Amino acid sequence: MKWAQSITVTLRTIRTLSTVVTCHARHRRMLVRFAGLGLGAATLTTVAAASGNSNVDVLTSSPDVSSFMAEPVTPLSTLVKDKDDMKVKMEMLIMKIQADFCRALENEEDPSKKFIVDRWTRAEGGGGVTCVIQNGKTFEKAGVNVSVVHGILPVDAVRQMKARGKELIGKELPFFAAGISSVIHPSNPHVPTVHFNYRYFEVTQENGEKMWWFGGGTDLTPYYLVEEDVRHFHSTLKNACDQHDAGYYPKFKKWCDEYFLVSHRNECRGVGGIFFDDFEMHSQEDCFKFVKSCAESVIPSYVPLVKKHRNDPYTSAERDWQLLRRGRYVEFNLVYDRGTKFGLYTPGARIESILMSLPVYAKWEYMHSPSDGTPEAKLTEILKNPKEWI
Amino acid sequence: MKWAQSITVTLRTIRTLSTVVTCHARHRRMLVRFAGLGLGAATLTTVAAASGNSNVDVLTSSPDVSSFMAEPVTPLSTLVKDKDDMKVKMEMLIMKIQADFCRALENEEDPSKKFIVDRWTRAEGGGGVTCVIQNGKTFEKAGVNVSVVHGILPVDAVRQMKARGKELIGKELPFFAAGISSVIHPSNPHVPTVHFNYRYFEVTQENGEKMWWFGGGTDLTPYYLVEEDVRHFHSTLKNACDQHDAGYYPKFKKWCDEYFLVSHRNECRGVGGIFFDDFEMHSQEDCFKFVKSCAESVIPSYVPLVKKHRNDPYTSAERDWQLLRRGRYVEFNLVYDRGTKFGLYTPGARIESILMSLPVYAKWEYMHSPSDGTPEAKLTEILKNPKEWI
Repeated sequence: MKWAQSITVTLRTIRTLSTVVTCHARHRRMLVRFAGLGLGAATLTTVAAASGNSNVDVLTSSPDVSSFMAEPVTPLSTLVKDKDDMKVKMEMLIMKIQADFCRALENEEDPSKKFIVDRWTRAEGGGGVTCVIQNGKTFEKAGVNVSVVHGILPVDAVRQMKARGKELIGKELPFFAAGISSVIHPSNPHVPTVHFNYRYFEVTQENGEKMWWFGGGTDLTPYYLVEEDVRHFHSTLKNACDQHDAGYYPKFKKWCDEYFLVSHRNECRGVGGIFFDDFEMHSQEDCFKFVKSCAESVIPSYVPLVKKHRNDPYTSAERDWQLLRRGRYVEFNLVYDRGTKFGLYTPGARIESILMSLPVYAKWEYMHSPSDGTPEAKLTEILKNPKEWI
Repeated sequence: MKWAQSITVTLRTIRTLSTVVTCHARHRRMLVRFAGLGLGAATLTTVAAASGNSNVDVLTSSPDVSSFMAEPVTPLSTLVKDKDDMKVKMEMLIMKIQADFCRALENEEDPSKKFIVDRWTRAEGGGGVTCVIQNGKTFEKAGVNVSVVHGILPVDAVRQMKARGKELIGKELPFFAAGISSVIHPSNPHVPTVHFNYRYFEVTQENGEKMWWFGGGTDLTPYYLVEEDVRHFHSTLKNACDQHDAGYYPKFKKWCDEYFLVSHRNECRGVGGIFFDDFEMHSQEDCFKFVKSCAESVIPSYVPLVKKHRNDPYTSAERDWQLLRRGRYVEFNLVYDRGTKFGLYTPGARIESILMSLPVYAKWEYMHSPSDGTPEAKLTEILKNPKEWI
């Protein structure tokens, strides 16, 4: 395929325009920094035309990958050839969401601080693109990870699936998973932490039957409660849901409160949002459109809160409270989070990308309990009794 | 039993001499600070004699509880009546080990900083005594916890047992568990962290059969490797083991390396020590004696290392490395440790006592890797390739 080859060549050209951050050969990582020069579909189209391909359909449907944080995981030739396959559509969506979100966050950060971009491959099949800001002015740690992996799902990972409601037939199953996952831990205690994750799964069972489903969610973990902010966050997610089904928001809001529960503390991780799994109730296309709306609502739901509070003054006691709450965040992620467990049980999983969700600093204090009537006690009260925000 | 009553009265007297630290009524805790006035068996004996009991056997066997950090969990009358029952013998042992260890640590601490002592009860049966120093000069966090609990072992906890090798018949089983568990996180990065845990279990199966077993271990987690110190630590444990069976140390040393493995990092938590479980191969009395030797070897194996290094100078980079390693400690405890899982799945468990093992501060840095040839790289190398120390 001459056309696909020419795209590859063009991408190499783009890469020469980009800034290489660093290269750790012993981790077999390819570290690329795309300069985001806005070399869009037009460039690719031009090159494609120059290479003599006159098929207009192919040209107009050629993927616009130049704005992405790195080259997609799947070869461009496959992305073009299988453009209507849900695997490809999902990869293209999450690569775009990653780029959009990273750029929106960089706008709130010190201009000298940009995401480092690690493009990695998984020996067992697939790979991913991990983008991280660490010790920034606005973001103490911001991680945005895309992974597109396939291979054989091992027994332990199948068990994680089963625990989640999927009754899979077989012990080791061929699978494909594409997802975006992000946790943002801001420096300022008045800016909440956000987490989102949208994913698509395909599993072929022992009897040959192929199953597919989507899952995902977005949720907010403030350190100090500003009710107006929480209402803004939930409203934005509700609007995204309502475009598809008025029943989604109430259902997925409840699911979120139930899922992000630190059981042993009997308190929620944060003020919730939406969460869903095993999403396959409609046509694949309808499901995808819903997931797309959700993923696109992350920026408008969260970035305004960063903008509003990132320069708020704060005390060392407030910073201390933030670190204690980050300890609880660690407890949830390591003890309960199914995504983390799924990752830790999947051979060849990239541990640094999975545990990128952990904060730079966390704190535990024996028998810590905020004094009555304080803002810290007010937050704790809400975490123990999740409420309706809109 | 007049005699037992008189002991209770005496303990009340002791308590009036003690310093009450604080009382959080809503946690239904009883917080007692024993002043450690050395009111030993003599006092109890005197009171017992004064109360008119002339049975010399009972007097000489009366439990010496006055040096304990708090009143034992089991009523004194039962401790006297069932003194030959392994449940009682184990409780008396762990209360003594707790007191001895806490006092040995206080000797290395600023004199103004003493353990706070929380004596707590569990609604479902039993209770415990939790001793904590936080933000001390020598110890950033030192926790020494005794728990003596009984009741019905729920399904999830039974499952944890099964995973561990015990094939228990039944879903919800009557159980008794007495154990001491301790994690010491020193302030100075040149002083290693130590953990030990010794426990005794009884479970009655659905068919009425009663099972018992011991488990435990002591292991060291240095931030900087001083081979001589690690050899001292292992030698002390080996000596304790060798008193009972020359095969114990090699076997339990290997088990320790295998158990304290952070699988997803493919590195050990520390430089090991000894670990064993399902220990029931001899008479109950022989097993107990072995466990007693192990528990008694904690102070001589560890406290000399504290003494040696607690005033070592250190840099902020060394402190940083200590916090990163503490992040790994958190990963092991929350993702893998069966004791923690058992606790989190046991209803009515005292969460603050279980998670007391977590450090005050922990840190995670994306893609952190020590430079070749540094002391940090040297430690990492050992953690990835556990070795024989003696």
